[in-house]
Order: sequence, then structure tokens, then C-alpha cells
Amino acid sequence: MAELPRSPITVLGLGAMGRAFTREFLGGGHPTTVWNRTPGKDGELVAAGAAAAATIGEAVRASRLVVVCLLDHRSVHEALDPVAGALEGRAVVNLTSTTPDEARELAAWAKGHGIDYLDGGIMATPDMIGQPPASLLYSGSRTVFDEHGPALRLLGSADYFGEDAGLASLYDFALLAGMYLMFAGFSHGAAMMRSAGVPAAEFAERAVPWLTAMAQTIPFGTTAVDTGDYTTDVQSLDFNKAAVDAIVRASRDAGVGLDAIAPVKALIDRQVADGHGAESFNRIFEGLKPVSAPPLG
Amino acid sequence: MAELPRSPITVLGLGAMGRAFTREFLGGGHPTTVWNRTPGKDGELVAAGAAAAATIGEAVRASRLVVVCLLDHRSVHEALDPVAGALEGRAVVNLTSTTPDEARELAAWAKGHGIDYLDGGIMATPDMIGQPPASLLYSGSRTVFDEHGPALRLLGSADYFGEDAGLASLYDFALLAGMYLMFAGFSHGAAMMRSAGVPAAEFAERAVPWLTAMAQTIPFGTTAVDTGDYTTDVQSLDFNKAAVDAIVRASRDAGVGLDAIAPVKALIDRQVADGHGAESFNRIFEGLKPVSAPPLG
Repeated sequence: MAELPRSPITVLGLGAMGRAFTREFLGGGHPTTVWNRTPGKDGELVAAGAAAAATIGEAVRASRLVVVCLLDHRSVHEALDPVAGALEGRAVVNLTSTTPDEARELAAWAKGHGIDYLDGGIMATPDMIGQPPASLLYSGSRTVFDEHGPALRLLGSADYFGEDAGLASLYDFALLAGMYLMFAGFSHGAAMMRSAGVPAAEFAERAVPWLTAMAQTIPFGTTAVDTGDYTTDVQSLDFNKAAVDAIVRASRDAGVGLDAIAPVKALIDRQVADGHGAESFNRIFEGLKPVSAPPLG
Repeated sequence: MAELPRSPITVLGLGAMGRAFTREFLGGGHPTTVWNRTPGKDGELVAAGAAAAATIGEAVRASRLVVVCLLDHRSVHEALDPVAGALEGRAVVNLTSTTPDEARELAAWAKGHGIDYLDGGIMATPDMIGQPPASLLYSGSRTVFDEHGPALRLLGSADYFGEDAGLASLYDFALLAGMYLMFAGFSHGAAMMRSAGVPAAEFAERAVPWLTAMAQTIPFGTTAVDTGDYTTDVQSLDFNKAAVDAIVRASRDAGVGLDAIAPVKALIDRQVADGHGAESFNRIFEGLKPVSAPPLG
């Protein structure tokens, strides 16, 4: 049985990510056209079968699906604004790293030009693209996601979060924030252990299974966060305050910088000062959440 | 074959932890004597077979192994100072939550009175005691750990870190610091998601596998931390700075408090300002580690 011809794809932006995308699209049998603002990045890709476009206009006219991976929000506008007319009726999947509000602005811009817009966040490094652990998060046009899902899944797992084009980026950043704080926590712990001459490699042997186990307990606290009822009959904020105060004291004793742990103490202290010492630790969420957050549901 | 009689154990302090310890020791066949500063906490334990001591002196004379779980460092001294003579030649396992320096001070005090001292940290809640996930960390007298290991393992897994009595507490606090920062990271991410009406429970479905996967990458960074060579050919601090700056911007856009994420930005910014932007993220350790840390090895 003859294989169906795959749909053409255009890739704008040939940084490490754009190059990795192109290799996966080519490997999946899609005729792929590439363009980069500064020339000279497409040699290896052309050798692998990609078509090099002389201009961005030529590039976008080559495919109904245009995948964008540029430096930032501003560079997306600089590249796409001049070819808005040519993009009309096509699908743009923007995998450039932008904030949620920037993604929403681009979605509005695209809508104004009759362009179907899907935004995405990449939870992977370039060398992970096309491998199972690579995860790409999408939001915006469901039509684009449904129609081009098979092509997008060549890059990694593909999840769609809804029509709000900012959602994918919001998930991306929220997950990264969690990761950065966990890494900062490991660094703080490693600095404490260094005070007694224990190497970080040795500490990691304990810390990785510990953090893994503690991560699995996170869902137990989400009902409190989502309902705002932080009543607890196990460890209260008063208990956590005593523990974190002792960690701060021990860190100071050991000469460890308080940059990472002091803010956690401050978040706890604020809730305790507001009279919530008997409630659960999850209440620190109340000190972080947007004042004007919409209701859940 | 007749079972060997188990050695007697004394438990000082009948809070939730001390009561859980007593139940496990009794269950393991150890004649167990209990004492609490304020009376009335031992009824259930006596019914289960424990012997109630009328005075702390009577309690410590009942066993060669004395397990202590009081409120804090000060309460340990208040309880043990008057019975230092009676404790001579006995083993004290102190599972009271103390800082590393407090544990070292108690070890020196014990040594001065001819008492064998083992300090411990409890990585468990009271209801976990005696169950497989409960982990207890010990440091101080190896003799005590070796001789009483089987009894201590009734409480949970038992690991020994070395003769420095402060090490167990240091590990305990370093691991807890990592956990608290990871939980703060999840709270920050949940606050970002709340700005778009996404419940924490829904965010957790993504965040738990993500944080679990990212925790497994921690060991890859420890060689840099232990050698001080932060050269990298993958993601640099400059790259991480751009990402965290974008997270901070997005958090501000969403009305989310910057308390948890801003310090991570500051740790990165300091390394970049010092000219290390091309090196790896793990370099934030240099901004936290004790200036007077001993060499490794």
C-alpha cells in the first residue's frame, strides 16, 4: 500500500530547537521548508532534504503549517508582521518562548489577520526533541492542534490545554518555577552539608529519593488550596514555623546563605502572623495567589 | 528454640513521637519504661505493657538504652542535667529535634559525664513510625548505633552518618530545606495557574511527574558543585537568567507574589553579575555555601 504523502511544513527560526524540529519533520516524511533571519544555518538541513527559502514570504507560502521558533516575542512580530497577508488562512504554531500575556497578544494579532494560531511551550532541551521524555504543551486554536497533531507529535508528547493561547506558556512557566525552586532547595541543602565536608554527590544520594517521595505528597494538599479550607489535624503552620526557624538557625550557624530559605520562612511567618498558625502549610499559597484570581471551575 | 529476652529500653518524653516509639519497642518485645515531664500521658502505654517510672531517675536506671524525644534542646538539658550521674555508662539516643550545633553541644556534655551519645533525626510523622517509609538518621557514637541498631530499626530504617553528632540533624535539616523549597515552588506554580482559573489539583497532575523527573537530574550537577568547575556546553546561567526573568515577568503580569521566585532570580543574577553567565546553573551553590567550608574528601 503506497504511503500517503505527508503535508508540507515550514520552520521559521533555525536555532538549536528549530533545527531539531526540522530533522524530526523530515524524518517523519514531511516536505520541510526552512528559513532563518541570518543566513547560513540551513546547510546541514538542506543536505538532509529540507528546502531553503530565500525569503520569509517564500517560506510561509510553501506550507499550510508554519512552525515558529525564534528568540522572543519581539522577534516573532519582526518576522511575521511583514508577511501577515501571506499567512492568512494558514496555521501558525508558535513555539518561541513567550510569557502568557505575550502569547495572548500574538493570538489576538493572528486573529486580526485571519491566521489560525496555536501557542506552545517546550518542556525539553533541543537534544531531547523527538525522544519520549520531550513534552510539548499547546493552547490556542483547537483546530490547528487537531489537524496537525500527528506532525506535532513527531517532536514529543503533545498536550492541549484550551483555547486561551496563554495557557501553554503559563503551564510551562509554572512547572519551571517549581523546578527552579526545587533546584534552589537542593543547592541550599548541599551548602548546609558542605559545612560538614559532605560532598553534594553524597547528599544527592539521600536528597533525590527524598524529594521524589515528597513530590508524591503534593496532591494531598491541593484540596485545601482549591477550597481555601486549610483546617488540618496533622502538622500545622506553627509546627512548620518551628521547623523552618530551626533550619534558618542551623543554616546561619553553618555560615550558609539565607537567600533561598528566608523567603519560605517569610511566607510561613506571614500566615502565622495573620492568625493561621493552626492551619496547614499549604496556606502559604494565600500569600502568593493573585488577589484578583477568577473563581475556580 | 526459646526467644532471647530483649534488652530493656527507657523512653523519655511521651509526645506523639515518644508514644509511637514506645509502642514499637513493646511490639518488638523490649521491656519498656516510660517517663514524661507532665504526668498523665502514659495510661495507654501502661495498658499495652509499658512500665511507668515515678521519677526520671527511676526511668534512666531501668535500662542501658535511654531514648529521648522531648520538645527542644533546652528541655533535653532540663530533663537530663539532674540525672547525669545516673546516666553514666548508659547509652542515650536523642531523637529530639535540635540543630547540628545543639546536637554537638549535647554530645560534648554527654562525653563529659561518661555517657554514650547518639543523635538522631526523624524523617517521618508519628503515624509513620514502624512503617517502611519511616527513615531515621543517626550520628554520634558508633558503638551505640551498632549495639542498639536492631531496636532502633523497629522505628524505621536506620542510617548512620559518622561520629560528628551534628551530622544527622544537618542531613535532616538539609533534606527538609529541599522539601520546603520544592513545596514553595509548587505553591508559586499553583498561584500562576490560579490566575487562569486552573485548580491546584489539575496543576498537580502535571507538576508531580515533572518535579519527579527533574529530581532525577539533580545528580548530574553535583560534580560541578563538588569540583567548583561549572563549565557547561548545555544550558548556561545566561539561558537560565532569561527563563527566570520571563517567569518573574509572567508572575507579575498574573498578579502572583514574587516572594518565592525573586530570590532564585537574585541568586542567578549575582553569578551572572560576577561574570559567570556562560557557566552552569549549579553555580548558584557558590552564592549559598559557607565561606569557611572545609575542603571536601
